[in-house]
Amino acid sequence: MFRLSGIGFALLLLGAIGVAAGSPAALAADDAANVIKYRKQVMSANASHITAIFSVLKGETSYSGHIAAHARAISYGAAMIPDMFPAGSGDGDTGAKPEIWQDWVKFEAAAGALKMAAAKLAEIAETGDMAAIGAQAGAVGKACGSCHEPFRKKK
Amino acid sequence: MFRLSGIGFALLLLGAIGVAAGSPAALAADDAANVIKYRKQVMSANASHITAIFSVLKGETSYSGHIAAHARAISYGAAMIPDMFPAGSGDGDTGAKPEIWQDWVKFEAAAGALKMAAAKLAEIAETGDMAAIGAQAGAVGKACGSCHEPFRKKK
Repeated sequence: MFRLSGIGFALLLLGAIGVAAGSPAALAADDAANVIKYRKQVMSANASHITAIFSVLKGETSYSGHIAAHARAISYGAAMIPDMFPAGSGDGDTGAKPEIWQDWVKFEAAAGALKMAAAKLAEIAETGDMAAIGAQAGAVGKACGSCHEPFRKKK
Repeated sequence: MFRLSGIGFALLLLGAIGVAAGSPAALAADDAANVIKYRKQVMSANASHITAIFSVLKGETSYSGHIAAHARAISYGAAMIPDMFPAGSGDGDTGAKPEIWQDWVKFEAAAGALKMAAAKLAEIAETGDMAAIGAQAGAVGKACGSCHEPFRKKK
């Protein structure tokens, strides 16, 4: 009888969910509509976190002590991006452009750039240096735009 | 001439922003409308993160590897809650009930309970034990409700 050890099973699982570097995951069991709904939640969370950061930077609120946490949340959301755009999830109620899958390496790099920029903002935010925080928040906003511009349909 | 040393100035600042344990902060320079907008962003982010978690738990998507990060983001958002409800921010376009300020200690405890529940979910999520993750995600959802029920107006 064939039995998997715990480690064997873990390796099998890793293999099953493994994705070749530089290629989007396939749309396994997930229904495209559900994937689209999911990624909209993540994008919406990221939009809320960056809006909250800019509320502080514009002087509308005084929650500078929250910026690091918002930035960290954005870096987590950015890290999810490549997973959330499996091949086959480009149709339906989505703003995703076909360019995502035509130029996957560039798309993945853009998501990675956001992740890095947001992680750096989280670090800088902990210093409390508002000028540096403002500059890096600008870099985060630019990283959002650098992905939306080529890869998201105009609203 | 009166001059503050760096440390003296830092202490003064700490004093200025210090809040007595068990009392809401005062609505300093922040305009109530901006505070309300800000906290709606944070609540909206938390709603997105918990919705994303339940998308996985309901089997709509397979992003179990994202649950820990969503949970961590919720714990960050929960930690912001007491700051976001300064005294004087109960009027305007808000679902906040006066009970928040009438029973601040209970409100703060409810926010703290969400923070702890979400942080625990983040830890459990890293184990990959889906049954335990499901149970703890339920506890996070319940913690949301335990605060909304007494402190948020019915929609």
